[in-house]
Amino acid sequence: MLNKNIDTFLGCDNSYSEAQVVVFGAPFDSTTSFRPGTRFASRTMRGESYGLETYSPYQDKDLEDFAVFDGGDLELCFGDTEKALAAIETYTTAILSDNKLPVMIGGEHLVTLGAVRAVARKYPDLQVVHFDAHADLRDDYLGTTLSHATVLHRVWDIIGDNRIYQFGIRSGERREFVWGKNHVTTQKFNFDGLAAVVDKLQAKPIYFTLDLDVLDPSVFPGTGTPEPGGVSFIELLEAMLQVTKLNIVGCDINELSPVYDQSGASTAVACKVLRELLLAIV
Amino acid sequence: MLNKNIDTFLGCDNSYSEAQVVVFGAPFDSTTSFRPGTRFASRTMRGESYGLETYSPYQDKDLEDFAVFDGGDLELCFGDTEKALAAIETYTTAILSDNKLPVMIGGEHLVTLGAVRAVARKYPDLQVVHFDAHADLRDDYLGTTLSHATVLHRVWDIIGDNRIYQFGIRSGERREFVWGKNHVTTQKFNFDGLAAVVDKLQAKPIYFTLDLDVLDPSVFPGTGTPEPGGVSFIELLEAMLQVTKLNIVGCDINELSPVYDQSGASTAVACKVLRELLLAIV
Amino acid sequence: MLNKNIDTFLGCDNSYSEAQVVVFGAPFDSTTSFRPGTRFASRTMRGESYGLETYSPYQDKDLEDFAVFDGGDLELCFGDTEKALAAIETYTTAILSDNKLPVMIGGEHLVTLGAVRAVARKYPDLQVVHFDAHADLRDDYLGTTLSHATVLHRVWDIIGDNRIYQFGIRSGERREFVWGKNHVTTQKFNFDGLAAVVDKLQAKPIYFTLDLDVLDPSVFPGTGTPEPGGVSFIELLEAMLQVTKLNIVGCDINELSPVYDQSGASTAVACKVLRELLLAIV
Amino acid sequence: MLNKNIDTFLGCDNSYSEAQVVVFGAPFDSTTSFRPGTRFASRTMRGESYGLETYSPYQDKDLEDFAVFDGGDLELCFGDTEKALAAIETYTTAILSDNKLPVMIGGEHLVTLGAVRAVARKYPDLQVVHFDAHADLRDDYLGTTLSHATVLHRVWDIIGDNRIYQFGIRSGERREFVWGKNHVTTQKFNFDGLAAVVDKLQAKPIYFTLDLDVLDPSVFPGTGTPEPGGVSFIELLEAMLQVTKLNIVGCDINELSPVYDQSGASTAVACKVLRELLLAIV
Amino acid sequence: MLNKNIDTFLGCDNSYSEAQVVVFGAPFDSTTSFRPGTRFASRTMRGESYGLETYSPYQDKDLEDFAVFDGGDLELCFGDTEKALAAIETYTTAILSDNKLPVMIGGEHLVTLGAVRAVARKYPDLQVVHFDAHADLRDDYLGTTLSHATVLHRVWDIIGDNRIYQFGIRSGERREFVWGKNHVTTQKFNFDGLAAVVDKLQAKPIYFTLDLDVLDPSVFPGTGTPEPGGVSFIELLEAMLQVTKLNIVGCDINELSPVYDQSGASTAVACKVLRELLLAIV
Amino acid sequence: MLNKNIDTFLGCDNSYSEAQVVVFGAPFDSTTSFRPGTRFASRTMRGESYGLETYSPYQDKDLEDFAVFDGGDLELCFGDTEKALAAIETYTTAILSDNKLPVMIGGEHLVTLGAVRAVARKYPDLQVVHFDAHADLRDDYLGTTLSHATVLHRVWDIIGDNRIYQFGIRSGERREFVWGKNHVTTQKFNFDGLAAVVDKLQAKPIYFTLDLDVLDPSVFPGTGTPEPGGVSFIELLEAMLQVTKLNIVGCDINELSPVYDQSGASTAVACKVLRELLLAIV
Repeated sequence: MLNKNIDTFLGCDNSYSEAQVVVFGAPFDSTTSFRPGTRFASRTMRGESYGLETYSPYQDKDLEDFAVFDGGDLELCFGDTEKALAAIETYTTAILSDNKLPVMIGGEHLVTLGAVRAVARKYPDLQVVHFDAHADLRDDYLGTTLSHATVLHRVWDIIGDNRIYQFGIRSGERREFVWGKNHVTTQKFNFDGLAAVVDKLQAKPIYFTLDLDVLDPSVFPGTGTPEPGGVSFIELLEAMLQVTKLNIVGCDINELSPVYDQSGASTAVACKVLRELLLAIV
Repeated sequence: MLNKNIDTFLGCDNSYSEAQVVVFGAPFDSTTSFRPGTRFASRTMRGESYGLETYSPYQDKDLEDFAVFDGGDLELCFGDTEKALAAIETYTTAILSDNKLPVMIGGEHLVTLGAVRAVARKYPDLQVVHFDAHADLRDDYLGTTLSHATVLHRVWDIIGDNRIYQFGIRSGERREFVWGKNHVTTQKFNFDGLAAVVDKLQAKPIYFTLDLDVLDPSVFPGTGTPEPGGVSFIELLEAMLQVTKLNIVGCDINELSPVYDQSGASTAVACKVLRELLLAIV
Repeated sequence: MLNKNIDTFLGCDNSYSEAQVVVFGAPFDSTTSFRPGTRFASRTMRGESYGLETYSPYQDKDLEDFAVFDGGDLELCFGDTEKALAAIETYTTAILSDNKLPVMIGGEHLVTLGAVRAVARKYPDLQVVHFDAHADLRDDYLGTTLSHATVLHRVWDIIGDNRIYQFGIRSGERREFVWGKNHVTTQKFNFDGLAAVVDKLQAKPIYFTLDLDVLDPSVFPGTGTPEPGGVSFIELLEAMLQVTKLNIVGCDINELSPVYDQSGASTAVACKVLRELLLAIV
Repeated sequence: MLNKNIDTFLGCDNSYSEAQVVVFGAPFDSTTSFRPGTRFASRTMRGESYGLETYSPYQDKDLEDFAVFDGGDLELCFGDTEKALAAIETYTTAILSDNKLPVMIGGEHLVTLGAVRAVARKYPDLQVVHFDAHADLRDDYLGTTLSHATVLHRVWDIIGDNRIYQFGIRSGERREFVWGKNHVTTQKFNFDGLAAVVDKLQAKPIYFTLDLDVLDPSVFPGTGTPEPGGVSFIELLEAMLQVTKLNIVGCDINELSPVYDQSGASTAVACKVLRELLLAIV
Repeated sequence: MLNKNIDTFLGCDNSYSEAQVVVFGAPFDSTTSFRPGTRFASRTMRGESYGLETYSPYQDKDLEDFAVFDGGDLELCFGDTEKALAAIETYTTAILSDNKLPVMIGGEHLVTLGAVRAVARKYPDLQVVHFDAHADLRDDYLGTTLSHATVLHRVWDIIGDNRIYQFGIRSGERREFVWGKNHVTTQKFNFDGLAAVVDKLQAKPIYFTLDLDVLDPSVFPGTGTPEPGGVSFIELLEAMLQVTKLNIVGCDINELSPVYDQSGASTAVACKVLRELLLAIV
Repeated sequence: MLNKNIDTFLGCDNSYSEAQVVVFGAPFDSTTSFRPGTRFASRTMRGESYGLETYSPYQDKDLEDFAVFDGGDLELCFGDTEKALAAIETYTTAILSDNKLPVMIGGEHLVTLGAVRAVARKYPDLQVVHFDAHADLRDDYLGTTLSHATVLHRVWDIIGDNRIYQFGIRSGERREFVWGKNHVTTQKFNFDGLAAVVDKLQAKPIYFTLDLDVLDPSVFPGTGTPEPGGVSFIELLEAMLQVTKLNIVGCDINELSPVYDQSGASTAVACKVLRELLLAIV
């Protein structure tokens, strides 16, 4: 009772040394072009996670049985994108060098680039599984090449053709879809074909990036750019449990913007997704 | 026009003496551990019910054809749980002794205990059908045995083994599920198996307690602890219409917390559920 | 950069003369009996439409390839319903006389009457396809015959029996449904039977009026009278793409009330519905 | 406990026959041109008034010592302004004919016209004291002569020159101020000169109309058209206690729009103003 | 960076052993009769305090120059008031026995009772300075003697006549004011007479309890029971800086309910008040 | 009616060529460290300005009598601060070269730097009058030198010592105040001394930058970092009317973040401030 006030995501209160998995927040949203606010995701999730249980009746597992460490939030530079990405890369590299698994909470989707830079260096054969409403394949956007709208193109710069598998995509410029046909695998609207992809990627090192706006805005209104026509919570959960059978070497969830959902339901969704993700990968 | 201002739930403006069914509010949420606010449910529902019709195209029935009385809200003691439960029990007993059917609007789920105490005294063979996201089977919670999180365990104290049938449960501690296996019937996630339960319970006196958070938070975000992965409105409606074929001797709906859904959609859901419930049991 | 600030719905920035389709707003909600606010729909949609793309992966079409003009909002008289309807009729007539297709953004549903008056004069054989949660078939409501709750009855006054096809209806007084049986075609709850109606109406001039509250409030809480039990976004999209195969000579979407959904998801739904509608009819 | 649910403004639960003062709601906002919502004022005030005490430490009086009746809300016709005004006039006339004092809760400011029509018939020498941010002296507005923005001009039509005393006015068209100079007495920005007016009006019958937006929006943000630069709560209270020394024969408070202030502070202000007003005039 | 995530109020990150002052949260609101939510005050203040500076230009002092420890929040029992008060008393006693100064963040005002029980045991001559909108002098309320509305009466039970000095009081039942005249010193509405009280209390041990609703709701809308007519921020600051010249042996600030002020301004006020209070007493 | 939809700030609908004053929006908030959202200020102000009149009873002037052009919003690059500043500088330079007066609507306060770069080039003797809650004098902040928290230091880099006059400052790090003593003139808390500054600066070219958070958060809660203890609307208005007697060669208002004030009162304040500012400088 007379200790400093420690605040972690539900059930992630192990020490760094004993942990297999390291959760951390990357509160950055400077390139968000429409409605900012994802910088508050990780902090809000920690606070609201206490409305959740550590036990999952879906997986019949309990976070209390596993060692997860919550390192808190990185202190990132707003307005200088490269500096922010470098800080994410540095932190992710530190986790990887201790042979722990990084789980990042965004932030806007661009934060994925910082983590992938670190992970791809360790795993040159890295493949990326990407759930999202938006293709994020632009080459540049509003005058910059580093943007939430270009992030998968930047990931492609690093890992190259036919290493990115997108699901749930229902928004983008026409030229994104055209370009994508030759460089990435895109499943529009839903998770059809995921089983085949999972089969194909067995034994590969996988970075899994989950933009929560793949969910329908009815389920997840708390995001900068709500895009109607998305998947349900159960569809996402089932798809995620398939992906996590693979050899996940890094992952993130991103694009929760709590201020836009004052009911707290979006944050509850993000927390439950993170709990299930953690239970599936530990 | 020159009478006092009477405010009832839509279509429930009959006198007590002529009514078959008595609706009343139990605005209590003192044991709510996460986000309080269910105390405002009944009052808000009365006001917003005027956005609804008295006629149901689902059941082809009209509330105007039936005699329902709305007794308003009990004045409950905040901070002294036993006093509040005693007041609910007393009021419910009065309704039962006049051979009317009590329909309570919570409040947090613990209010069910007050009503069940009264109903179980009149109907020793009472069975409970329970729709909820949460098992509510803890024996104690945060240092007290009287809590929204223990309420079904307290109901079990009264009616004993194999009398509680839970549906839609998707959250709880592991030990709740373990304990439940030997004492109650739990259907996780959905309403599978409800038809068989309804068959089995023919002719038994039934208390039906409906925690509205059994609904998915997309449908019903206005609740203290949103738990993703719930049922749809239509699934709930169909399940409810099955349960109400039984011999309902008391029922409640609970856990609407209007302030968390400023759109009013959650209150509209609660009102429509109550309308359909009333039409089904009169 | 040194021009006046032009504000149009996404991709509708063509000139009037070159446009095939004319979008305009009818910001009127004076007869709304429950919760007003639809007057802000068109303006809010223009602003929020920039969270959307001009390209539709559903139809593989791009608004940039078509000529649509956004004429802004009519300046309507609040509190004098007939004046407001006359202004809508006048503007719609002007569009029709230039052989362009009017697409109106409500406002409450009564605005449809103004447009139908104009369209029915040009197309005496007009048929109306109507998606809605509410039947809107009352003859009078709260002492007036011109109301959001009577609008389809008023349309029937103009075009007569068996010319109105309603889908998704799940709310109304009993007598609306009774009256409707002899005068209009009503499909309750969903879009069953739409294909047959579309077959039957080939070659007829069609006015399509889409009350967005046909959607479930989980998808579209931002409306005055949320009515649970509605259709999903995908169900609406598919139904709409069927209707738009017909000879649409006028259409509207109505009943978005942005203030009741602070997440912006309802506005995003309305914008995406309008984009798909425009792409389907150009 | 087994009576119907009666809902009145705090402490106004006397019977009509014994009451000296009759409070009633006029939930009408159809001519509101900017942001509607005042229709919910009276209902919300009743509910929230229980956060207040019946006792005033300002006046050392208690509402429990006086007989006030709350007749609830009129059912007014939205979209047909004349019908709504006629209903207000009829109800006010009934109160006056029983020699009781009418206290109306708006609604938009136009509702004042209905009440003044009734009061001016009984008191031909009627004078009007008017607190407001807006002059409301237009002759017509957006194509209609019956509008919240013209209401004091319409009152002038009835009672004529030099009978209207305005205070706190800080917004209007230039021509309103110009016209007003010859027809009404206007104190801009504050209550300077009120004492002299009160002296002058001794023994005259007074209708007191209080547009709550005379308050600064910091105190009272819950209104359709917040106008910065207004008076404080204490300034209003003191001015009101001066006016109520006169022979008040009718009064109203108007323009609370609760939905725009989710903190409830504006409703609390309106409730406290009404309590003090009632205590001052009984 | 690889440490657990510590979350403290701004500048209160010293260790317990080196600290002179101990800040802790008492998140309890079970007896709140109107609108609950103060349980979230301390947690929200920690998060939002980073919008503030550690330096005060009012006092020309910096929190970084002093040793303050933030012990986080007590885990209190909702629904069992006595247990919650006992936990507060125990924790406060522990701080006092280490000769540190307890600064509690409520919670509802009743939490003060737990702290005063501990402080009065150590300082039998304890005097209480009380800033509030409400007298809180009832003997019982809604059937219980332990309530936010009775807390100062309960404090009087412990310390007796003429030891409580209230300022800013503008709400209460008549009998509270009558009773108070013989037992406590009450300054209605403002801080007049504070200087004299401060003179008189020199050298006495003082418990200072600050109900933030003494502020006007324009300044501090984020509270359960907004009471118009309160003091300004600067008036409070100046009064507080007078009180803190005394020998403060314990203090609290209470009744922030963040959910009712979505602007965050109320939380910012509470944080700044706490910063100034801490700087004044260290 | 059949023209494209033009959207300007109230009364600013003149053509560029005829205008003396050019209003434009700089929707940029990428360096905002606490709560972003000022990017929506200019757009929201245009929409909400229609709740205001063009006539000012304070100055007895009407915007309709003057020629002001609203150029809409710059399209700025989020996440690349230098690019955004360059775009602002370019646009401002264009206005200046046509001998018109630039009036910029931020955006976060950093946008001022872009405008000052342009203005200082034209007016080498430029002086800056700065109203703000925050000193904004840091040399770097969170790892960058271009930040809302450093903007006045950056302005000082350009114009040098004793050219910046700050008023209302009530927040900052200690070292900002220390540094400021030797380089700028700072009036803490209020506008004391403004008259003397105005006297001294007669005939100098003045850039006036108004951070709206100089206002108390009760008046202006809709900002990223509410800082209690600010000035009232009337105090700001009077101070502004003093400053505008000087030779204003450029100005801006900034830091409105509409999403944090859902009442709209903050936007109304910003609009009224802008109206009065425009009327004072034309």
